[in-house]
Amino acid sequence: MNIRAIIYVLGWILNIEAGFMMLPFIVSLIYGERQGVAFLFVALLCALIGILTVVKKPRNMVFYEKEGYVTVASCWVTLSVFGCLPFVINGDIPHFIDALFETASGFTTTGASILTNVEALSRCSLFWRSFTHWIGGMGVLVFLLAIMPLTKGGSPIHLLRAESTGPSVERLLPKVQNTAVILYIMYIVLTVLELLLLLLGKMPLFDALCTAFGTAGTGGFGVRNDSIAGYSAYIQWVVAIFMMLFGVNFSAYFLLYLKKFTKAFRHEEVRYYFMIIAITTLIIFINTWGNGLGFEPTLRHAFFQVSSIITTTGFVTTDYNLWPTLSKVVLVTIMFIGSCAGSTGGGIKVSRITTLVKTVRKELQIYVHPGSVKKIKSEGKVVNHEVIRSINVFFIAYILLLAFSVLVLSFENRDPVTTFTSAVACISNVGPGLAEVGPTGNFAFYSPISKLVLIFDMLAGRLEIYPMLMLLNLGMWKSALKPAVRRRIRKMEKQG
Amino acid sequence: MNIRAIIYVLGWILNIEAGFMMLPFIVSLIYGERQGVAFLFVALLCALIGILTVVKKPRNMVFYEKEGYVTVASCWVTLSVFGCLPFVINGDIPHFIDALFETASGFTTTGASILTNVEALSRCSLFWRSFTHWIGGMGVLVFLLAIMPLTKGGSPIHLLRAESTGPSVERLLPKVQNTAVILYIMYIVLTVLELLLLLLGKMPLFDALCTAFGTAGTGGFGVRNDSIAGYSAYIQWVVAIFMMLFGVNFSAYFLLYLKKFTKAFRHEEVRYYFMIIAITTLIIFINTWGNGLGFEPTLRHAFFQVSSIITTTGFVTTDYNLWPTLSKVVLVTIMFIGSCAGSTGGGIKVSRITTLVKTVRKELQIYVHPGSVKKIKSEGKVVNHEVIRSINVFFIAYILLLAFSVLVLSFENRDPVTTFTSAVACISNVGPGLAEVGPTGNFAFYSPISKLVLIFDMLAGRLEIYPMLMLLNLGMWKSALKPAVRRRIRKMEKQG
Repeated sequence: MNIRAIIYVLGWILNIEAGFMMLPFIVSLIYGERQGVAFLFVALLCALIGILTVVKKPRNMVFYEKEGYVTVASCWVTLSVFGCLPFVINGDIPHFIDALFETASGFTTTGASILTNVEALSRCSLFWRSFTHWIGGMGVLVFLLAIMPLTKGGSPIHLLRAESTGPSVERLLPKVQNTAVILYIMYIVLTVLELLLLLLGKMPLFDALCTAFGTAGTGGFGVRNDSIAGYSAYIQWVVAIFMMLFGVNFSAYFLLYLKKFTKAFRHEEVRYYFMIIAITTLIIFINTWGNGLGFEPTLRHAFFQVSSIITTTGFVTTDYNLWPTLSKVVLVTIMFIGSCAGSTGGGIKVSRITTLVKTVRKELQIYVHPGSVKKIKSEGKVVNHEVIRSINVFFIAYILLLAFSVLVLSFENRDPVTTFTSAVACISNVGPGLAEVGPTGNFAFYSPISKLVLIFDMLAGRLEIYPMLMLLNLGMWKSALKPAVRRRIRKMEKQG
Repeated sequence: MNIRAIIYVLGWILNIEAGFMMLPFIVSLIYGERQGVAFLFVALLCALIGILTVVKKPRNMVFYEKEGYVTVASCWVTLSVFGCLPFVINGDIPHFIDALFETASGFTTTGASILTNVEALSRCSLFWRSFTHWIGGMGVLVFLLAIMPLTKGGSPIHLLRAESTGPSVERLLPKVQNTAVILYIMYIVLTVLELLLLLLGKMPLFDALCTAFGTAGTGGFGVRNDSIAGYSAYIQWVVAIFMMLFGVNFSAYFLLYLKKFTKAFRHEEVRYYFMIIAITTLIIFINTWGNGLGFEPTLRHAFFQVSSIITTTGFVTTDYNLWPTLSKVVLVTIMFIGSCAGSTGGGIKVSRITTLVKTVRKELQIYVHPGSVKKIKSEGKVVNHEVIRSINVFFIAYILLLAFSVLVLSFENRDPVTTFTSAVACISNVGPGLAEVGPTGNFAFYSPISKLVLIFDMLAGRLEIYPMLMLLNLGMWKSALKPAVRRRIRKMEKQG
């Protein structure tokens, strides 16, 4: 394994994180908060390590699939570990594991929190918390690729693929760097649009910025204890609609930009996505009707929660813990489904779910017409047999990881609903679950071990499981480190 | 589709059911119960329809995969529909849907009950209830194949395969009929052995018979309201050990019978099965330790419940609803896993689960060593790629059916744990779940629609999903019935 190249990329990631951390420092200057010094301090630390690492570029910058996965996984772990230090230093979140949980939850756009009182945090910490959503939503390596080519001419598509969400990361443009740039441009345009609409609704600038970050990354950290519940109906509608928009496959937006309107509107995954949103909103609307709130608020809360949960954002406007079981089960179901592939959202992804359903249907048809060779189609094209296999295996890995996590969490002896939805909400990067981890709850009560498991789940969910499993694969590390160890032993033998 | 051949088999199934129903009638004669007349009456009805159907054997008795699935599914539906009539007629379970639920639960060896007071039933009804477990455990078509060859020389392996549980129904002997006979012989020997040991423990003969039937079929209907809890520790140990034995892949017993001891003890699935039982028993033992019961009772309850749930039997000796969350989650996990393939138990099956885990592990290795062509092995042999694919798709279908069922059940507005475990317990043919459908609860409160969904789940679980999905496949029926309809139209045109 090309460990030098991986470390080189890690160095750049630290440099970028140092740059990003200057933003909360600036926020602290504006509000005159002394907590901001922590961000400056950690930024300098990151920059120091980062610059020392990238000072010499390795000659061999070839990234195979394996390196792609390991790089991405270690980048995200590094980001989270350094990103949480300011919280620990400035005392806003004094315990390291808690701070790591909050930061990993931020970068992975989960939005699960260990904070019992969000409003007690300093402005700069709140800003950093929401900004991690925005960085994590589109991906850090995508950002790195957008601003600089890692290799001359060569395009490390494996990096982009390993970090991006969804099974169908098409290269929108022939050059990887251009794809990365266009993705970030669309991302920024949509974020700014939401920001302007929120400001139009008289949301304070700070709140509007943080909310826009949380929406764009489909993260869900709020700056108020009641999330979005305290804002006006207009603001809630804006957030609900933008959450939905950020859950759309970005290649559909790219088609719109290319003025290929019919192709964009015929995008199969996006159409299923909107269909699921419409149906589940309707079910919840009817199911929660008769709460005495009237037509508009009932519809708004139903649509807001569906949009928030299916995009795995996790903002809330109402305590859906109090909803009937049907509505709660619908919410948990769409936690699994998640948003479109190639969006900033998490979950299994709509296109994977539709392919899974088609796979089961095809199996039936094989029994009915044994001779037939019906192929599974998606977006009008025949899906490669290898892609179907990998989707099947992804689903299996997802469920097995979920089962394992639920088992470990159940050592805490919380009620089964809390235990189960904690794991689902973290793997699918939603944030809030049901019962004790519902809209009015948080993850503070978990022990450090459970928190570490949930951190792993959040990272695994965001990076689509395999990169994180790869990090745990001891066999790989052994064979990767063997040559280096051998060389050192030989050297030592020579010397003495 | 060869509909005539299917109807012919259905006729024989009704004849067999008529024969089976004479047993509860005899029981009613012994105890002098007037409710027994209902069994005689329905037996005569079954025999009448059955004999009229089989009087002319169709010339073409070829069974393809499709016919195998459809035959098996319609046999089980027929068995349940006719099997429930005595309950309705003699008034023990007056409502048809309730009676159908109880009977389908019996034949599928689920053991989920809608009865609030089991002890109020007549002896003959109780006997029939437990006896359906014994019939369903090994399979009705297996029985039919054991007593008569359906086709001259030809062996309808598709029938055996479609009914039998598990992915690896090997033909133990070259002739299908011989395989069916040997399976039933082993089944009877083990059942009689348990019966004798129960009688040795001074269990009343009637109770012992019913309990042995429930254990052998891994069903779980008890004859007392507290299931097995009221019997002696000795009896509980006997039942626990025999449940475990009936969850073993029967081909391991066949190897023992052939005196291939090393091969039998090296059976991979069986070894994993015992390993899972040992580990989960230990976890629950430690987790429930300190309940003040002492060593033996704590171990006994832990082992009994693990053995009962992993084999999907569903007998209980203690209210595990009161156990800590970890123990409950462990129980739900082994509900999914289930027993060995080729046993009388349900669930996903140990060999499938191990193959799924191996599939995920192999995927990782592909990323690490892209060039490698490592194959997945099971029982020392390379698993065919087609088998792996079908296991993957089975798992997906299982989870999708579960999700669908949970969604429908949640319309009832019961708590999420009841809703979720009701569906799991029925699809995996366990019987009791948690919360309201736990050891002290039952399924009586569900609406008829929910009960129908659960009946479908039980049948789908017992027949491994596809046969039942096949019955719902309208497209197939259309194309199957078209020739007959066309012929009739042509006839009518000629005549008029």
